[in-house]
Amino acid sequence: LERDVVAKKRPGEFELIDRYFRQLASEPGAFGLADDAALYRQRPGDDLVITTDMVVSGVHFFEGDPPDSIAQKAVRVNLSDLAGKGAEPFGYLLSLALPAKWTEAWVKSFAKGLAADQKRYGISLLGGDTSRASGGLTIAITALGRVEKGRMVLRSGAKVGHAIFVSGTIGDSALGLRIRRGEIEKRKGAKHLLDRYLHPQPRTALAPLLARHASSAMDISDGLVGDLAHICTASEVGAEIGAYRVPLSKPARTILDRKPGVLAAILNGGEDYEILATVPTSSMVEFAAEATQSGVPVTRIGTILRREGPPIVRDETGKVIKLAANSYTHF
Amino acid sequence: LERDVVAKKRPGEFELIDRYFRQLASEPGAFGLADDAALYRQRPGDDLVITTDMVVSGVHFFEGDPPDSIAQKAVRVNLSDLAGKGAEPFGYLLSLALPAKWTEAWVKSFAKGLAADQKRYGISLLGGDTSRASGGLTIAITALGRVEKGRMVLRSGAKVGHAIFVSGTIGDSALGLRIRRGEIEKRKGAKHLLDRYLHPQPRTALAPLLARHASSAMDISDGLVGDLAHICTASEVGAEIGAYRVPLSKPARTILDRKPGVLAAILNGGEDYEILATVPTSSMVEFAAEATQSGVPVTRIGTILRREGPPIVRDETGKVIKLAANSYTHF
Repeated sequence: LERDVVAKKRPGEFELIDRYFRQLASEPGAFGLADDAALYRQRPGDDLVITTDMVVSGVHFFEGDPPDSIAQKAVRVNLSDLAGKGAEPFGYLLSLALPAKWTEAWVKSFAKGLAADQKRYGISLLGGDTSRASGGLTIAITALGRVEKGRMVLRSGAKVGHAIFVSGTIGDSALGLRIRRGEIEKRKGAKHLLDRYLHPQPRTALAPLLARHASSAMDISDGLVGDLAHICTASEVGAEIGAYRVPLSKPARTILDRKPGVLAAILNGGEDYEILATVPTSSMVEFAAEATQSGVPVTRIGTILRREGPPIVRDETGKVIKLAANSYTHF
Repeated sequence: LERDVVAKKRPGEFELIDRYFRQLASEPGAFGLADDAALYRQRPGDDLVITTDMVVSGVHFFEGDPPDSIAQKAVRVNLSDLAGKGAEPFGYLLSLALPAKWTEAWVKSFAKGLAADQKRYGISLLGGDTSRASGGLTIAITALGRVEKGRMVLRSGAKVGHAIFVSGTIGDSALGLRIRRGEIEKRKGAKHLLDRYLHPQPRTALAPLLARHASSAMDISDGLVGDLAHICTASEVGAEIGAYRVPLSKPARTILDRKPGVLAAILNGGEDYEILATVPTSSMVEFAAEATQSGVPVTRIGTILRREGPPIVRDETGKVIKLAANSYTHF
């Protein structure tokens, strides 16, 4: 019995912070997590952009996923929101509720994942809170970013005639999730799709381009068509896209060719964490060229129309495609 | 069966936001929760203070507690952090993970609690996220406040000879929790203690006074002596307090007289959400007078000493009291 107790001996809240989280608080305003709040002194000429997103075991990731991957998913879904607003991230606050069975090794790997992403994206932990969870692991992150004053990109600026762009490829994460659930067979290319589900790539490289060129933008988290509908509602416009114009990865294309029914999952599966943006046709070419240069190519998939209900999706013959579900929800 | 389905019919994520949360987003920078992030344009001459705190079912409140009370506890523990830093709150972001059995009536009451506190403390919802919980209700809040540039009150400014103050009364919440757990008999005065556990009162009225007078401050969430130890560590000083000088409510005093053993629970039970501050003796009288005027009286309980280990607690005869646990942890 005693051996068991020793084996289970774990650090307390303060030790955990000391050992694994304090070193992540690199900004002076984080006070090395030794105070109750963070201080932020805004730079003149900047606006502050703030977002919060929660990831929950069994909802946004699987219980057994690698702790560093879970940490990075929690951070990246937030950075993706900031990227969609044209903002450059600089810091985040972390609330971490640990399940009863947590181990120190788990926390160590989790913090290592955070450290790697802090380096990757140039951000610092600014503050946080730890608690026992009621059930599984739950992580809430609030991320902060800067954008040039007045340049935050909203959902509400799309105008009739503007071109609709997406970054990267669409549907990979949704197909990856379906493979994990066993709903789609695990064939060649599955690794790429599984990775896209577990490791979102926030398109921070596009943020300054969006701030310069986009009339509206957001990151795609609830599904392409559903999120386009959000832009249409906020901008009081309509939209038309070509399903065949939506950029797909090779593995996604292969699955779609085999099972045309997965189109809905691709167009509305959610968790793409790609950018959806509208751009006036006058800056379209420049935007696309700069995006390619930044390492994140964008593809035009359609056009903003006068308001007339939800976005219209057409196939290559011009026929309107009806999609089953309009949006993905974590609910 | 059909009736049962109808009875269980609940709104989705977007409907929930529309019906109950959008109206809470009164700041223009919240965009009526219709965008992916909030915009904050800092006022020149202000610093921004940011904190995050999570409350979890079965850890920080009981599952059956009234939803409006849970909402208010989640908000107030954050506002309490800001108050301890001398900051005036203006907004917050909310991550809400709802358990499987949530009902619309529950969410309605929860949002009503938020609305009442927004009015009470002059704050606005700035953004948020909702998700399914893994287990019980989990709420993470990030609160934002303003303080005059350079005036944020840290833990690290206490100097030898400064007076140690606390606001209000100490130990009520910890005794309230013990009454709820059945560890202390429910007698006359229990209502006050139970209420102090469920409804923290962040001392926002003291914030401007702390910014003017305090050399260090924090809110007491982990227990008076443990939190004083945090100030001592950050300030590289020692401290001595008189247990008999610690202000108690009448119900707490009655319990202590009956059961002297609860002293440790009072001095280190946690969740007081009162202010602990150090003040140079030159501004002591002014600070105390202004605090009384603000409606939140403060009491001097001790003095900052040269560094010499953890805070010393003495009884009225001068004898040193050893306390069992040094700090409360939600872990």
